Amino acid sequence: MANKMEKITSRDVDFSQWYTDVVKNAGLMDYGPVKGTMIFKPHGYAIWEQIQKFADLEFKKLDVQNVYFPLLIPEKLFLAEKEHVEGFAPELATVTKVGNKDLGENLFIRPTSEVIIADFLSREIKSYRDLPIKYNQWANVMRWEKTTRPFLRSSEFLWQEGHTFHSSREEAKEMTLDILEVYKKLANEILLLPVIAGRKTEKEKFAGAQETYTIESLMYDGQSLQSGTSHYFADNFAKAFNIKFQNKEQKEENAYSSSWGISTRLIGAIIMTHSDDFGLVLPSQVAPIQISIIAINDSEEVMNVSNNLRSKLSSDFRVELDKTDKSFGFKISEAEIKGVPIRIEVGPRDLKEGVVTISRRDLRNKVQVKLEEVQNYISKEIIEHDKNLYNKALENRENKTFKANSLEEYKSIIEKTPGFVLVPFCGEIECENDVKQKTSTNSRCIPEGIEQTKSNCFNCNKESNMMVYFARAY
Amino acid sequence: MANKMEKITSRDVDFSQWYTDVVKNAGLMDYGPVKGTMIFKPHGYAIWEQIQKFADLEFKKLDVQNVYFPLLIPEKLFLAEKEHVEGFAPELATVTKVGNKDLGENLFIRPTSEVIIADFLSREIKSYRDLPIKYNQWANVMRWEKTTRPFLRSSEFLWQEGHTFHSSREEAKEMTLDILEVYKKLANEILLLPVIAGRKTEKEKFAGAQETYTIESLMYDGQSLQSGTSHYFADNFAKAFNIKFQNKEQKEENAYSSSWGISTRLIGAIIMTHSDDFGLVLPSQVAPIQISIIAINDSEEVMNVSNNLRSKLSSDFRVELDKTDKSFGFKISEAEIKGVPIRIEVGPRDLKEGVVTISRRDLRNKVQVKLEEVQNYISKEIIEHDKNLYNKALENRENKTFKANSLEEYKSIIEKTPGFVLVPFCGEIECENDVKQKTSTNSRCIPEGIEQTKSNCFNCNKESNMMVYFARAY
Repeated sequence: MANKMEKITSRDVDFSQWYTDVVKNAGLMDYGPVKGTMIFKPHGYAIWEQIQKFADLEFKKLDVQNVYFPLLIPEKLFLAEKEHVEGFAPELATVTKVGNKDLGENLFIRPTSEVIIADFLSREIKSYRDLPIKYNQWANVMRWEKTTRPFLRSSEFLWQEGHTFHSSREEAKEMTLDILEVYKKLANEILLLPVIAGRKTEKEKFAGAQETYTIESLMYDGQSLQSGTSHYFADNFAKAFNIKFQNKEQKEENAYSSSWGISTRLIGAIIMTHSDDFGLVLPSQVAPIQISIIAINDSEEVMNVSNNLRSKLSSDFRVELDKTDKSFGFKISEAEIKGVPIRIEVGPRDLKEGVVTISRRDLRNKVQVKLEEVQNYISKEIIEHDKNLYNKALENRENKTFKANSLEEYKSIIEKTPGFVLVPFCGEIECENDVKQKTSTNSRCIPEGIEQTKSNCFNCNKESNMMVYFARAY
Repeated sequence: MANKMEKITSRDVDFSQWYTDVVKNAGLMDYGPVKGTMIFKPHGYAIWEQIQKFADLEFKKLDVQNVYFPLLIPEKLFLAEKEHVEGFAPELATVTKVGNKDLGENLFIRPTSEVIIADFLSREIKSYRDLPIKYNQWANVMRWEKTTRPFLRSSEFLWQEGHTFHSSREEAKEMTLDILEVYKKLANEILLLPVIAGRKTEKEKFAGAQETYTIESLMYDGQSLQSGTSHYFADNFAKAFNIKFQNKEQKEENAYSSSWGISTRLIGAIIMTHSDDFGLVLPSQVAPIQISIIAINDSEEVMNVSNNLRSKLSSDFRVELDKTDKSFGFKISEAEIKGVPIRIEVGPRDLKEGVVTISRRDLRNKVQVKLEEVQNYISKEIIEHDKNLYNKALENRENKTFKANSLEEYKSIIEKTPGFVLVPFCGEIECENDVKQKTSTNSRCIPEGIEQTKSNCFNCNKESNMMVYFARAY
């Protein structure tokens, strides 16, 4: 196939070019015919499927129900919420005709479904008995972007959006935080992204939300990537969309709500955290292929052993045995560039000694393992592979996490070694706008688990009562 | 919630109204704000998820890989295949601007993805080593429809579309038929739709296909519903889109292809086959809730038994125990109208005798079952429930399957008792157009497993060499 074995730029030389080289050469994506759109090729889409599988199960444990709302939203519905339409207006792809006929009204392709879900629920919810409602939708959404990048920013992307409605503040807040826990677990345990969780500042929180919670991960190059957000609206959202219910005391009350989402950006986060100059490196739990068996020739003995290994390992792992007539070297490169965690080479010389050669993608080592020990060996090594990925990412983050007390100090850090910088911050929107204007960076989150001491704001020097991570971000 | 307990029209009085009443009252769907669009509510979407789960697994057994292609297709790409654009042109929702800016070109929302996939693969496929390519996509598509009906025909619907490319005719044909087998299995064993499988006539086959295979199911009212199609293109498709590969002899050859799809129409087929005047009846394998436990009061004893039953049954079934303060009667009606296959009522009087009362949705019976026998009893009864659904559907089909040798005979059958009518047919497009014009019906398929004898065409009286099912259809 085209491009598969092209050279990959070193990530330390040109991180951005490296990223493009990896996504293309690993067969994750290609560009669509409309500018800013992308094709999810099988290897890329399969990673998303693994993410979906995990998240969907966790959502269902929280009694979340999946739904599907229409793609097209009439302009008039959109206009109901002014803040909403202002945020999205320049990015809205608009259907104006069908065939040769003008529709006479503008229909927007959803940039999110909150308006259309809110409109529906304002009629659907009558009584406290109808609550809670916990909807989730796996869907495509569209936001026309000027500069795009595979997985990170494209006009159309895939995501899940959860929208829940409750009869009390406490329950809505609990839901918001329960989802944050799901996202943390997904990031830390499945995607092996050591994320920092916390609350967004006033400037960075979602329009209309009372509080926005986020998980932030640090990429290899020291830039932050927002990897999932969960919003608590109190009754703000219900007020804006007129979603009322009759409570147990027979009184009308606005519903309390949360919303939350993760997207195919996560694939970008995985790549920019774990991969290297030899291509993709994937956490085993989302790797579409976990073990690749490569036969050095197609002699009966070699093929028998390869087939046996495949059937034995298939009960626990996703295994591939490529039987095409591609060369041995090509198959090795392909397993490497595609980020297969474990590679087994089966060759006649090894077999004489009753062994096969096993490589871990993260170490790029070669170890001869006795045939009867292969299963045990791999079960252990795949865990080590994942631990190593997490630890390396954590080490990178720790090496790139700093403290600063003044803007000068902050700027010199960010310019020298991009990373997370913990600063005392006043929390004011104007002050953060000022920082953004001066440094092209913004706050990432007010982290959980860090002492929030009083001090003076690193930028405006006014009294500060929070410690906040600032960083350059994707 | 709105409308839940409204009356359902009898299906023998007004089938069309009955259908609308069932889909609304069972909480499967609601109408979207744009005409012809629909909202998949949790109970409706969950049925689709069950269908997806089964089909996706079967596809993967055939080494099919999931992909995702962009929603928007530029007009110029579409114009490449004339037959294609002519078929879809009047139904294409067209994006002409973003924000306030005109795009300067028309972008169509995909009515299918075949053009955009073909365009991509014409560059991707180089050598026989790149084949087979077996892509599948689960996605939303849009075809603007004048008259719409929930699940059966809406402007936007959900489906899967498979597109596979092979290095030989035989392999492409085999794929086409393998998928037909998957669809038959899905229909017969999971959805309990006793389908007739066969080949489409020249008039009814898909544009550009060499052969179209179909599964046709007969609804309660005697109308047919096309429930899945699989197309064999030979090299027609590759020729139209210039998809070539270098074969083992180093010669350039057009690829051989298949395409195939099922959609959310299947939900309509399930409803119109199995449901009754009391609401939804669902095959247990796609029922979002398989067992509903209803406690008569919330006394400790009743709740203990209910909780225990739930946790015991949850290992094998999808179980719901509704703990809201809705009335007992309301909960019973809800389980019924939503098509829960098995309902368990737990009450204090029964418990004194160590029993609970169990109802099967298809029989609407009530049987007292000893507590310790509940699990066994349900495991057997749920199988009987499904058998009964299949047999009733089969009986309906058999009662509504006829033979005719002349158009007169055909018309009198169709007008009296709609159903499948097997006729000797010449196979000519003009003749079938004539039948369609005279009767508003068309051929459904040239069935598998029926002797194809020579005779005279039921309409034009020319020599016929095939026996074909004709019917009125959705």
